[in-house]
Order: sequence, then structure tokens, then C-alpha cells
Amino acid sequence: MNYRLNNLPERTVKPRGKGLTMVMDKGLSLREVEDFIEVAGAHADIVKLGWSTSFVTPKLKEKLKLYRDADIPVYFGGTLFEAFVIRNQFDEYQRVLDEYDMRFAEVSDGSIEIPHEVKCQYISKLSEQVTVISEVGSKDEKKIFAPYKWINLMRAEIEAGSWKVIAEAREGGNVGIYRDSGEVRQGLVDEILTQIPEETIIWEAPQKAQQVWFIELIGANVNLGNIAPAEVIPLETIRLGLRGDTFNHFLNKK
Amino acid sequence: MNYRLNNLPERTVKPRGKGLTMVMDKGLSLREVEDFIEVAGAHADIVKLGWSTSFVTPKLKEKLKLYRDADIPVYFGGTLFEAFVIRNQFDEYQRVLDEYDMRFAEVSDGSIEIPHEVKCQYISKLSEQVTVISEVGSKDEKKIFAPYKWINLMRAEIEAGSWKVIAEAREGGNVGIYRDSGEVRQGLVDEILTQIPEETIIWEAPQKAQQVWFIELIGANVNLGNIAPAEVIPLETIRLGLRGDTFNHFLNKK
Amino acid sequence: MNYRLNNLPERTVKPRGKGLTMVMDKGLSLREVEDFIEVAGAHADIVKLGWSTSFVTPKLKEKLKLYRDADIPVYFGGTLFEAFVIRNQFDEYQRVLDEYDMRFAEVSDGSIEIPHEVKCQYISKLSEQVTVISEVGSKDEKKIFAPYKWINLMRAEIEAGSWKVIAEAREGGNVGIYRDSGEVRQGLVDEILTQIPEETIIWEAPQKAQQVWFIELIGANVNLGNIAPAEVIPLETIRLGLRGDTFNHFLNKK
Repeated sequence: MNYRLNNLPERTVKPRGKGLTMVMDKGLSLREVEDFIEVAGAHADIVKLGWSTSFVTPKLKEKLKLYRDADIPVYFGGTLFEAFVIRNQFDEYQRVLDEYDMRFAEVSDGSIEIPHEVKCQYISKLSEQVTVISEVGSKDEKKIFAPYKWINLMRAEIEAGSWKVIAEAREGGNVGIYRDSGEVRQGLVDEILTQIPEETIIWEAPQKAQQVWFIELIGANVNLGNIAPAEVIPLETIRLGLRGDTFNHFLNKK
Repeated sequence: MNYRLNNLPERTVKPRGKGLTMVMDKGLSLREVEDFIEVAGAHADIVKLGWSTSFVTPKLKEKLKLYRDADIPVYFGGTLFEAFVIRNQFDEYQRVLDEYDMRFAEVSDGSIEIPHEVKCQYISKLSEQVTVISEVGSKDEKKIFAPYKWINLMRAEIEAGSWKVIAEAREGGNVGIYRDSGEVRQGLVDEILTQIPEETIIWEAPQKAQQVWFIELIGANVNLGNIAPAEVIPLETIRLGLRGDTFNHFLNKK
Repeated sequence: MNYRLNNLPERTVKPRGKGLTMVMDKGLSLREVEDFIEVAGAHADIVKLGWSTSFVTPKLKEKLKLYRDADIPVYFGGTLFEAFVIRNQFDEYQRVLDEYDMRFAEVSDGSIEIPHEVKCQYISKLSEQVTVISEVGSKDEKKIFAPYKWINLMRAEIEAGSWKVIAEAREGGNVGIYRDSGEVRQGLVDEILTQIPEETIIWEAPQKAQQVWFIELIGANVNLGNIAPAEVIPLETIRLGLRGDTFNHFLNKK
């Protein structure tokens, strides 16, 4: 850090077991990736190439190399997994992961409907090949799960081999753990946390108010996902209580 | 594309007669233009330097050259045309187009009031010099045209020489073909499409929900405009049914 | 400018006494700063490294140097001042300003509560070291000051040594001089302007509608702050009446 400030919340350092910032890249150029790494490389733990953007991204191998050379793991969004599965091309998906030398993959069912046992079989199978992150929650606004359901799904996916489970929101942040208004479903989150270790969950929190909410609930070292590249520095200051939004939260706890 | 996925909607390729993506550049630097071309050059068909930003843009000639060298036509926003017309400087506007070697120009009346015959005369006159894109619809929230009026205006402008007609929205997307809420005026769009060939219309659709709406109505190869540079890759995935928003739309049609 | 347009509002030029554009940098990379300077250097008068982002910004000295070499003054956001004060580290804050060779500093009380005399003492003290910009208004939505209070606070801070006073909004623009809806508190602004010279005030106006509102009220050369780097060119066109939003405002005044 550039100067000394006393009484900051303790922040984990990379490689982090918790306090992860997962970033969403939805089409950065090579030079923009370099810029991102310069500015946010110390704070970004893992990068998702959003949904199926990797399909139409030029210079994909060079891009993946830039992230890896900076020791930032990178993976393809879960919608890509789903796009292969719905087309009965899962084997080809596994070959694609190999071809691009991917070490991580996401398993989700936000857009497709598959029995949960089948989803867990995909998790098991892929976890022999890569580190699996799985996502719970639908992109469909009409599908609201009860808390016990979220807990059962998360637990089963962790048992099937997921390294972390992601609590789904869409990029705009209005489904899954959020209400239409973008507000967090607090009762749901509280109940999940009674059963699932918080370091195992990555909360998708693309909006600032959501980031603040989770940091105030869980602390500086909550895992947050779908962070825009330009928001990693702002998020880091929110984690440290150095932006107005959480300034007093951490001071009042001392 | 970086790997093979079956059953994707067919997408036209550049140079496209339909399925155009028109991008709004409101002040990119030269390096940012290079980055944009690297990432989105294969998907961006035409670039508008938004409204009168070209007036205060440094290194304008270098910028225009970057786009042209990448075979991406570029033009000045319609508000610039209007700024010259309202000052009785139309002749000077024509000289400016020549000075900057512009091959395209936009004719609009979003901020000025001119009789429609006069607008069509400008279209005729400019179409001897450049390829003309004309814009229908006012930036004024209080001016709501009936569908038959939209159709008459569009038809007259095409007859006067317009290559394409743009259905106006403001950058924020809340006038013209959209309600205050950003919602599309569906009845209006349906009626326009009964009379005007859809490949002749570019729908301004700066917001994702609007892009999704037009893609679901008209298909992967609808012409869309006022797309932010960083949204061209995301839009391309929406066109292909590879983002959650249109994932099931295209699959269900097979 | 790239071509001649008659009847534009007169615009001050750098270095400006009024008509300032204060830009918020919340984490640009070095290359992005270079790009920003290329595009907007002629229009950006002063840059704030937002709140405490300087704490976690890599290559901070190189970044400050880029701005200074372009003759754009740069300073740390007021929340950083507050972060040092609340920790009883004010002396250290002064040393940090020296270490980074800062010529400007912001004094604010958006997140901390200090008696106004104490705030003014900080302004006096710091104004011996640097040029001070002070900010009036709380980040707390529940703290609404009456107009006479705003005037007294501003006047006292100017007397204590502030070069300019900033009328607070948060980045999102929903506190201080704005209502929850982002709308400006017009009566408040009118009353402030009867007592405080307008060139002494920088109005935080991150949203376009707010920029338009102040430009229509005060003119092309109103001081505006918290402008996003990519919005400086658009703002310049709004100041000149060359974007739809203010197109007719300036013409009607001729």
C-alpha cells in the first residue's frame, strides 16, 4: 500500500482461500487485459470470460496467456458449458477445455433444465479434469427457490466436487439472491450461511450496493463475483472501509 | 470462431446487407480505437462519432483513418448536421465532409424543426456526395408520432435517397420507439415492419433489454444501432443465442 | 476545434478561473491516463483520485507524474483526509501530501462528524501547505441542510482558506444537492447562488441530466465535478450546445 493507515480490517493476500474477488471480463482487448493486470492484478483472484464471450473473442489464446502469466486463473462462463450440453456436445466441451489448457471450469444450469443429479454428475466428471466452480440459482425471474433448497443444492454440488459454489445473479443483478429491485434476499442469505461455510460461496455482486451489503454482513474477506474490471480498485477500498459506504461500519466495530 | 457449436442461428458476415451493428463512439482515444478494432472489428459494421463529438475530438483525422484502414465506415452524428443547418452553414457542412473525406453522413431532425420536404431535399442533395443515413423520430419526449406517420416519413426519406433509416432513441434509450420506461412500443414496430423492409431500418438499441427484444422479434440479423463499443461482443453472443437472454429463444425455434 | 460553427456560447480556456471540469479517476491504468490526456486534456482542469483509491493504486507516483506533465492538477479525494483524521493521523496525512508532492488537497466531512470550526482549522492549516478544495454536504441521506446552513458553511470554509467549495453528491448522485431521484434541489441552488460567487463553487454532477441542469441554469462555464473520464468530451459538447440536451437552450438565448 502507498502509505500507512491504522486500524484497517485485516485483508487476506493472494493466493487467497477467502476474500476472493472474481472478475467478469466480457470482451477486453489484449492491451486492456494488460492494463487491468497492472491496476488490479494484486486484488483480482480469478477471472471469468463472461458466459460464451470466448466463442467470439479474437486472440483468445493470447488473452488466456496474459492472465496466466500474471497468475490469475481464468475460466469460461457457465453459459458456455450449458451451450455445449444442450447440443449434446459435452465431450467436445471437454476437448475445448483441453485445447485451451483450461484449469478451471464452471458448471451451471441457469438457462437449461437438467435434473440436479445430472448436474452433479457433470461436476464430478469435470472435476477429474479441472477445478470446478458451480453455480446455483436460475436466470429465470420466475424460479424462486426456498432457502432449504438452495442449501441442499449447494451441499450436493460441493460433495460432487465443486471447489466453490456461486450464488447466481445476472450481470444486472436482478435474479437469484436478489429481488427485482436489486435488493438482497437477506433471510435467504442468513439461512444459507447457517449451513454452508462462507468461504465456499462466491456471491455474485455486480452492483456497489450489493458489494457493500455482503461486506457489512460477512466482512472484508467475503468472496464476491461478477465484478467489472474497472470496479476492482473501488471494491478493494470498500473492503477496507476506505470508501464512504463502509467507512463507519469498520470503525464502529473496533 | 474459437470452437464449434452446432445449431447456431445463421449470421451474415461483413460486408453485411443486414444484421448490421452500428456502434457509437463518443470519445475513444486512438489506442482505444485500435483496441476496439482488435476485439470487435469483425462484428462492427459502421461507427458513428456520436452527435457533435467530432467538433472537440483531438486527432480527428488520425481517428478516421484508423477506422477506414480497418474497413469500418465512419460518420458524424446527425446532431452535427443539424448544428450546421440551424446556423445556415449547410454549405460549410458539405465542405467539412469533403475535408475529412467522409463517405457517409447522417441527416436528422431530432433537435431542429424543419418541414419534412426540406429534410428530404437535404437527403437528396447529400446523397450526391455521400451515402446518407437518415434518422426518423424526435429527441423530444413530447413528440409521439402515430405509426402511419413513421411509415410515411421513412418511405419518403428512402425515396429521397437514404441508404438506411434509423429509428431514433436517445443514448439513454427513452424516446422515439421507446416509452419512458425504456420499453419498446411494440405496436409501432410491428406496424412499421408491415410497410418498410426490415433490412432498411436500423433500430437504435443502446440497452441490452432492447437488443434482446429486437433480436427475438426480427432475428439474429436485425440491424441495431447506438451500441457502445464494449457491448459489441456481448451483442454478438445475444445474436447467436449464446447469452442467457436469448439462449432458449433460438433453441426453441429449431 | 476541427471546423467552424457560428454562434457557440463562449467557452473559457485553460487555465480557467471558471468553467472548470473536475474529473474523477477511480483507478485508471497508466496507459488509460495517457489516453485520457490525449482525448480530454484540453478540457479537464483538475483530476481527483476518487476517495481513498490512491491507497491501493499501483504505480501511484508514475500516475501523478503523467497528470502533472500534462499540466492537470491532481489531488486525493476527501475521504482519504477523513480516513487519516478519524485515526488521529492528520500529521501523517500532511507528510503523505509532501511525499507525493501534492499541490492540492480536499477537506471534507462526508463520513466523519467534526465541529465545523475544527473543519475550518484543518482548511486553514492545510492551505499553508497546498491549495485546498473543501466539500460541503454529507454522504448521509438523512442529513438535509437548510439553504442558509449551506451558505454559512461555504462562506466559513472560503474564509478559512478554501480555493473552491464543492457541493457534495455521491458518485451515484443521490445525496447533498440532489434528491433520492437524482433531481437537483433547485430552491437550494438558487439560494446558494444569491450569496456565494458561482465561480467559487464546483457542483458535483456525475449524471448527464445534472450536468444539463446546471449548464442551463448557470451557463456553459459552470464548474462541474465528479465527471467520469469518458464523459469529458460529451460534457464539452453539452457546454457548447452541441448535444441534443442543450441544443436549443443556447440558440434560444441569442
